[in-house]
Amino acid sequence: MPEGKPISALRIDRQRLCRRIAELGAIGEIDGGGVCRLALTDDDRAGRDLVVGWMRELGLRVSVDRIGNVVGLREGREDGAPVTTGSHIDSVATGGRYDGALGVLAGLEVVACLNDAGIITRRPLAVGFFTNEEGARFAPDMMGSGVQQGALDLEQMLAVEGIDGGILGEELSRIGYAGEADADGFRADCFIELHVEQGPVLEREGIAIGAVTGVQGISWTEYRIDGVSNHAGTTPMPLRHDAGYVAAAIAVEARRLAGEMGGSQVATVGVIELRPNLVNVIARQATMTLDLRNMDESLLREAERRMADFVGEIASREGVEISERRLARFAPVAFDDGMVALVEQTAAALGLDCRRMPSGAGHDAQMFAPNCPTAMIFVPSKDGISHNVAEYTAPEEIEAGANLLLQVMLNRAG
Amino acid sequence: MPEGKPISALRIDRQRLCRRIAELGAIGEIDGGGVCRLALTDDDRAGRDLVVGWMRELGLRVSVDRIGNVVGLREGREDGAPVTTGSHIDSVATGGRYDGALGVLAGLEVVACLNDAGIITRRPLAVGFFTNEEGARFAPDMMGSGVQQGALDLEQMLAVEGIDGGILGEELSRIGYAGEADADGFRADCFIELHVEQGPVLEREGIAIGAVTGVQGISWTEYRIDGVSNHAGTTPMPLRHDAGYVAAAIAVEARRLAGEMGGSQVATVGVIELRPNLVNVIARQATMTLDLRNMDESLLREAERRMADFVGEIASREGVEISERRLARFAPVAFDDGMVALVEQTAAALGLDCRRMPSGAGHDAQMFAPNCPTAMIFVPSKDGISHNVAEYTAPEEIEAGANLLLQVMLNRAG
Repeated sequence: MPEGKPISALRIDRQRLCRRIAELGAIGEIDGGGVCRLALTDDDRAGRDLVVGWMRELGLRVSVDRIGNVVGLREGREDGAPVTTGSHIDSVATGGRYDGALGVLAGLEVVACLNDAGIITRRPLAVGFFTNEEGARFAPDMMGSGVQQGALDLEQMLAVEGIDGGILGEELSRIGYAGEADADGFRADCFIELHVEQGPVLEREGIAIGAVTGVQGISWTEYRIDGVSNHAGTTPMPLRHDAGYVAAAIAVEARRLAGEMGGSQVATVGVIELRPNLVNVIARQATMTLDLRNMDESLLREAERRMADFVGEIASREGVEISERRLARFAPVAFDDGMVALVEQTAAALGLDCRRMPSGAGHDAQMFAPNCPTAMIFVPSKDGISHNVAEYTAPEEIEAGANLLLQVMLNRAG
Repeated sequence: MPEGKPISALRIDRQRLCRRIAELGAIGEIDGGGVCRLALTDDDRAGRDLVVGWMRELGLRVSVDRIGNVVGLREGREDGAPVTTGSHIDSVATGGRYDGALGVLAGLEVVACLNDAGIITRRPLAVGFFTNEEGARFAPDMMGSGVQQGALDLEQMLAVEGIDGGILGEELSRIGYAGEADADGFRADCFIELHVEQGPVLEREGIAIGAVTGVQGISWTEYRIDGVSNHAGTTPMPLRHDAGYVAAAIAVEARRLAGEMGGSQVATVGVIELRPNLVNVIARQATMTLDLRNMDESLLREAERRMADFVGEIASREGVEISERRLARFAPVAFDDGMVALVEQTAAALGLDCRRMPSGAGHDAQMFAPNCPTAMIFVPSKDGISHNVAEYTAPEEIEAGANLLLQVMLNRAG
């Protein structure tokens, strides 16, 4: 018998949870079994409508705030801040069906399970989903939870222009999710988020549960490189001001730097766009993004500084102008020791293998961390793949994570 | 008095020629004074209609062949193959108003000048414009002249799909330029093409005329790189199969190799496209082009081989699949010694500074070179700029080039 806190005999219904995941995954479905539900598109609206319908069926009191966050509240025997879970239902353009959706629907499954058992907890419970966590259509990511927890300014966020030219506030109204609740009026007793790992560690080590200790810092920068367009045949190499070459050189340097720094440092150039983008014309302009992440703020700053140095040097060497725009910046976040220990101890009581680990990705939970005790539960991702239609977590892995979420929430809610 | 052949007292009308250049440049005009007349678009049609109208006004007998080449014939006192000039009127997406258009309209100005003087030459004259010289919408470039002179297959070219999905043969019909003349039925007595240099050499040396000795070899390859899409935060650097990184590394290597080889070797990556092209997703696919050019065929082959070696190595090292498609391949072309000497001697007789030089760009003339005596006349490009709205050649430079074209054609036509 593993050591651990006393736990309830309640267990979630795996089939019901997996049915909901499949049903939500059918909205915005793309080839290969993934989803495209970019924030505030018609498919995001359809997903929101489905989940809100389920919340109402489960008796939750649904409120929508001005940034479009949706929170379903389940009353407790006492008033006060609710024990809260949740995540997001928007996706990247080629996303999987578990990223975000699992955390929201597992929260609903916890409620359904308590409803079935006729249990009223001492403290209220809440299940939320937060607007534009992915940041794939509108920057920055984790926007809804960021506004709700006071890290981002509502009016600034409503004015953000998306990659397709849509304005966030207008798109919220268009899909009917410009709510009336104060965007920063919600405070939780504590926050616990279940999520797929999106990395290879748990699967590789054969461990069921990650007790997440914190989230790495994230730095997103967009560079616009202005060179001189010219003929690819007649312009001698030393006379070129080739925006495409400079973009490529920055991408190669980012990879080199991440390798040299090692540790948790990662670097990704996910966007490169050239103009005019023709085979026989030297590019006059390139737009690109750089995504840097590290668990250690000082190392993240070092990576930013060294990339900035390189960008300045190559601009001067190649005779191009480079302007930069910060798309997002989050310092590393440490979760609450007590909450992380509670996840570990409860996993042990459930007989689940568990290891502490950092999160390589940003999550809504990090926005709650400054305001209330916060932690996360990770379950394995097959082959470490996410942000990809091949994203997969097995039903029994989902069941383990959802049961752990149930027990942690019960422990906190009394 | 400079040494040279005896020349006629005839001179072209600079104002009339520059008016025609401006009028054609107004079709498909873009900001900055350039043009976008991608082959077989509505703007290309409008340009064609304008030039064909001028040909008819000048009394030329106009024929359109099955690949859309247009040739205007001026009878001579004798029958036989015509002394031919011409170029193209299509442009890249951000082109200038002189590239191609100058050669066609200077040919019309030669005809207008002879008409005014009431001169009938012994041999017939012809002025042509050739379909899709740029290759910016349909690959390969120099397509119309290539089909006409027997280097490319008509049916294959009619089936080519453009960057926008349009089929070349269908687009020809749509704009009314799928003619009935045999595509490879035209043979010239000789071919002489006037063109802007598109490079910085003449301007830098203060020389009016380039007597072009040949055209460098061109190798265009498209690479498709298939990697694995994954989360930018949670995927350790050594486990990535990042198609975007591989594309960037190939672009950087191309620049490095061109620098190392030196001489006339140039290398350009003008196209890079990533999928899904999102800031926080490792690219699963990249498409890119590589343009290699050299005056020496064995060195061009060496550049191709060394890039192929690098592509193979990085595919293996990064665990990505790279497929390649040849978009175009032309060996270097040497022009006719007698024609080049005629250009030089006639320039001297006109009192114009002239130097022999190779062409860094491909031109329709190279398609004629295997079939008849061929040469080209270059005039300076301001700052060496072309394929750019800032492309510029001064009226007096245009006048010098067109007078030289007139005298060379008169010399050949008798």
